[in-house]
This record gives sequence, C-alpha cells and structure tokens, in this order.
Amino acid sequence: MMDYQEILVILAKELRPARFRHSREVSRTAVRLAERWGVDIEKARLAGILHDCARNLKGKDLLQCAAANGLSISEIEMLQPALIHAPLGALLAERRFGVADPEILQAIRRHTTGAAQMSPLDKIIYLADCIEPGRHYPGVDELRELAQQDLNAAVLLAYDHSISFVLAGGGLLHPNTVEGRNSLLLEMKANRNGK
Amino acid sequence: MMDYQEILVILAKELRPARFRHSREVSRTAVRLAERWGVDIEKARLAGILHDCARNLKGKDLLQCAAANGLSISEIEMLQPALIHAPLGALLAERRFGVADPEILQAIRRHTTGAAQMSPLDKIIYLADCIEPGRHYPGVDELRELAQQDLNAAVLLAYDHSISFVLAGGGLLHPNTVEGRNSLLLEMKANRNGK
Repeated sequence: MMDYQEILVILAKELRPARFRHSREVSRTAVRLAERWGVDIEKARLAGILHDCARNLKGKDLLQCAAANGLSISEIEMLQPALIHAPLGALLAERRFGVADPEILQAIRRHTTGAAQMSPLDKIIYLADCIEPGRHYPGVDELRELAQQDLNAAVLLAYDHSISFVLAGGGLLHPNTVEGRNSLLLEMKANRNGK
Repeated sequence: MMDYQEILVILAKELRPARFRHSREVSRTAVRLAERWGVDIEKARLAGILHDCARNLKGKDLLQCAAANGLSISEIEMLQPALIHAPLGALLAERRFGVADPEILQAIRRHTTGAAQMSPLDKIIYLADCIEPGRHYPGVDELRELAQQDLNAAVLLAYDHSISFVLAGGGLLHPNTVEGRNSLLLEMKANRNGK
C-alpha cells in the first residue's frame, strides 16, 4: 500500500483544488472524530483522504468507468451518476492506492448514502464529510457539536438533513439512506435497552 | 360479495364511531377523486369504505391476527404494528366481505405506506385517506387543491408530508413509502418526456 504522503501527492495532482482541500479536511475531521470515539486513527485518516478519490469523473464517464470495473449500477445511480463515486472510490482505493483493509474500503463505499449496520469508522467518515470546516448550511454547527457528544445521534441528524434536502429538491431517495437511518434507530433503541 | 349497504351496516357496528365516520369520508372523497380522474367509481367507493376495516385491532392483537392469517410481518411492522391494518384489511375485505376484485384489495393493502407502481385507484385511496374533510394538519388544504389539479403531484406531496412527519418524530421510514415516492418521480419524469 502507498503511504499517506504518497497518496497525498497523487490526489493533489489529480483532484481539483477545492476537492483536494475538502478531502484533506474530511481526513482531519475524521481523525479528530476517531480520537473522540476510540476508532483507529490511521484508518480514519486514510478513509478520509481517499473518500472522494473517484469524484473527478462525471456523468457518463463515471457510469462507463464503473461499468468497466464491473460495478452493478442501480436505476437511481443511472439517473444520478454522481452517487457512483463512492463505490468506485472504494475500488480505486484498493486497486490503485493498494488499500487492502476492508474496513477502510467499506467506509469509502458507504460515505455518500450511508448504509444499514454502519461501523464506527463508517459513521465517522459519513459524518466528517458532512461537517468538515468547509461545509456551510443551516444546522451544520449543531451537527458539529452533536458529533462530539453523541456519535449515533449526530449520524441520525445527518441522515435527516440528507433526506429533507432530497425531499425539498424533488429528488430520488436512495434506499441505502433509508435503510441506514432505520438500522441506526434500531441500534440506538437497543443501546437504550442495554442490549 | 356483500353490497355497499351491507358492508356499511357491519362497519357501523364494529368500528369505533370516529373511525366509521373517517371511513365514510374517505369513501366519499375517493368517489369524487375517481370522478375527477376517470377511475371506476364503485371500486373507489368500496376500497374507501373498507380501507380501515381491520383498524380496530391494536398492538399484539393485530400482530397475532395477522400472523394467524399467514401474513408475513417485517421488522418495522413488529415495531409499529399499526402498519399491519392495511394488509390485514385487504385480507378481511376478501375473506369476510367477499371482495374478489384484486384492484380493490391492492388499494386497501397499499393505503398506509404507498408502494411502487401504484395504480390510479391505489393513488386515489392513498390520497383520500390524507385529505378527507376530517383531516386537519398544516398543508392539507394545499394538498386538497392539488388533488383536483394533478393526481401524481398530489400523491408526491402526500409522500413528502408523510416522510417529513416520520423524520420529525424520529420514527422508522417504511421502505414501501420510499420506493413508492421514487417510483412516482420516475413515472412523472417519463410522462413529461412523453413516454
């Protein structure tokens, strides 16, 4: 596997500057969240820097590259190809940057839509992408604070923001987002019941 | 099959008064929508009056009755048994009230969560349940007007209300609702493209 510095050099060249800045901030934010929540810091750093490594591809290019790599593409992804950058990013992280750790790859794969049964690392990357310092939208400060106090409650709020945003724009809701939110609510309920 | 008057007599005895009143209003509203949108009026009348025929059962009684009738019960339904009154209602409509028409049964089955690929009758019953004159909530008048102007746009707005309501209450989102909304958006898009 390449080390963090090698990855950084490649991404600095290949990503657009704003995207590269965002990736660094997600990585930093993920590291801070990992420290706070007892998650492996190096995994958080790597997943954070690599989460958008396939994000420069757009539209039909993204669809073709994903299809060429053998990814299955759902109807929603056909209509909103940008969603594919997450699973394709996991594939690139593995094949191009040599990341073998399945936990890191999973966190990259799940960072856009969320998913059922997210690991703590998945949650941290999902959240870091929503709250890195370059993000500005109503409610983001509340979300930043909550991410320090209650990881699950913060992920739930991030799901709610995401779903409300899609509703307001008349867009399609990804089933993974809805399954992820339901799964998280059940996990939180089980935790409250001391299971 | 029993005729409408026989069904009315039984429901008047068995449903609580407020539920019976609601059922009659849903039936009347569904008839008006059927006239407006060229849907079979007698099917709308029957589906409307019967849509809540299993609604008096609650909690564990509802779960047991559904299980005894061979209905499969999902995890969300285990946690929110009230959802089961819709598929159980379709079963009762068939076995007890002698309704054989699969379109009517489907509209009853789908009236609470919605579903992918709803028929015009499904949409009318789903909507009538949301806008009958006894319903009062922010936005209901807008929804009533829209139901006269654009059936699909009204169902979309009803889905959005329903999802926002569940988000605000921290509840579980039923996958049928989300699939229903996505499917409707795709149908509306196809209609705009003249397919």
